[in-house]
Amino acid sequence: MQIKVSDNIGFCFGVKHAVELSEEALSKKNGKIYSMGPIIHNPQVVKELSDKGLTPVEDIDGIKEGTVVVSSHGAGAKLKKKKGIKLIDATCPFVKKIQERVDRLYKDGYSVIIIGKKAHPEVKALTDFTDGRAIVVKDAGEARELELNGSKVGIVSQSTYSQDTFLEIVSILLNMPFSEIRVFNTICRDTIKRQGSVRILARDVDMMIVVGGKNSSNTRRLVEVCKDENRDVYHIENEEEIDRSWFSGKESVGIASGTSTPGWVVQDIIDQIGRYN
Amino acid sequence: MQIKVSDNIGFCFGVKHAVELSEEALSKKNGKIYSMGPIIHNPQVVKELSDKGLTPVEDIDGIKEGTVVVSSHGAGAKLKKKKGIKLIDATCPFVKKIQERVDRLYKDGYSVIIIGKKAHPEVKALTDFTDGRAIVVKDAGEARELELNGSKVGIVSQSTYSQDTFLEIVSILLNMPFSEIRVFNTICRDTIKRQGSVRILARDVDMMIVVGGKNSSNTRRLVEVCKDENRDVYHIENEEEIDRSWFSGKESVGIASGTSTPGWVVQDIIDQIGRYN
Repeated sequence: MQIKVSDNIGFCFGVKHAVELSEEALSKKNGKIYSMGPIIHNPQVVKELSDKGLTPVEDIDGIKEGTVVVSSHGAGAKLKKKKGIKLIDATCPFVKKIQERVDRLYKDGYSVIIIGKKAHPEVKALTDFTDGRAIVVKDAGEARELELNGSKVGIVSQSTYSQDTFLEIVSILLNMPFSEIRVFNTICRDTIKRQGSVRILARDVDMMIVVGGKNSSNTRRLVEVCKDENRDVYHIENEEEIDRSWFSGKESVGIASGTSTPGWVVQDIIDQIGRYN
Repeated sequence: MQIKVSDNIGFCFGVKHAVELSEEALSKKNGKIYSMGPIIHNPQVVKELSDKGLTPVEDIDGIKEGTVVVSSHGAGAKLKKKKGIKLIDATCPFVKKIQERVDRLYKDGYSVIIIGKKAHPEVKALTDFTDGRAIVVKDAGEARELELNGSKVGIVSQSTYSQDTFLEIVSILLNMPFSEIRVFNTICRDTIKRQGSVRILARDVDMMIVVGGKNSSNTRRLVEVCKDENRDVYHIENEEEIDRSWFSGKESVGIASGTSTPGWVVQDIIDQIGRYN
């Protein structure tokens, strides 16, 4: 069976940045080190860093001293400086830019619409910059239920969202009465590139395996792209989840991975499939 | 035969404003009075005002003294104050707002896109505010040929353009790479309202007559709306153009008019058709 690997594999810039800042903090061995939520959405990496001493926490209310690393998804405006705690900001620089954008739009009187998933930490943090007033829209159905009422609207997207869904939602909003719609395409380049490569690969193989955290938004988008192309697809986090029966009757398999999936996890999976050949 | 008249008839706010300012200037009998281009796009009104002494000119280069009325479509940034000439600005206040918007966008570094017709005086004047750099896009075909190249884009529309074409073009541009698209729906409320009423009326009658200047953009949009609805439609400027044969076999006719068509012109047409009954 032929194994074809997507063009875009390995950590993206923001994930690399967050992991490096965490490693650096850990290497200093300077008291307890926490991360606000999982530092990235990949269980293997979170476990590896946790083994080295990085403890994920939901909020810093109960913490009196130590170092807190803000995750790659950002922590919002709520996270204020606190005495005795050293803050390390590992927010992805691209996400940081969306935060600044949302902050500016809100202060300038725009109704802010965030295209993404309400429960995603990046979106939660972004909403924070609008005192919780931003409207989060996840799909075309939700968009159709909105009422813009001729207001000034500013639209951004979760950085790892689907480009197609983003454009579909904006097109729906454009058909409502508005005086101004300001659209920032804040889906990060890496996410767009991966979605594009996966689409091309999915058309060229008999089945797809997408590797990444089950909680990773951008990985899940890659799975959706494969489904869009009517291609059999399995979303796995590691080689142990692979089932030999998947490959029966298939001549080729495509492998893709999310922005927070380490290269070695992908390699383990390629090796495992190779053993079936 | 039943005659049904559209809900929105008579001058719009901007046209009324321009005609009133012209009448006022004429009543003062203070030297020669010119208008920069036809004051509005209606031949009857232009003739009426011309008979009273308002002379349309293409530019003011050859004029040494007198009063110049800027037409309802605006005259752009080019029209500077000139010694000996009194300027009266009859630009539609809604068009004025689009001019200010374009000026601001251009100064703020946006690539300005104007959705409309290049040759229309309103669009020509708007382009002036960008030192001629604004890109004018008239339809979906032209939009598809554009290359945004990831830039900051500001989009406005000619005030009398088709709402559907506007939205179609914006949707196409959204699919191109951009960092920000700022969309101002600058089609004026009166234009949108008339397009809506005409659509409803066209569905309800056997044929349509649209009354207004052949050079009137908003009137021509009303004709397009009727064609969209597969309804027989005639675009006329006055009752003399009516041909009795149009009505043979028809049970109802709908009458609509552009924003610069005087009420009395519409009434003359209704009276003329009434005589066939």
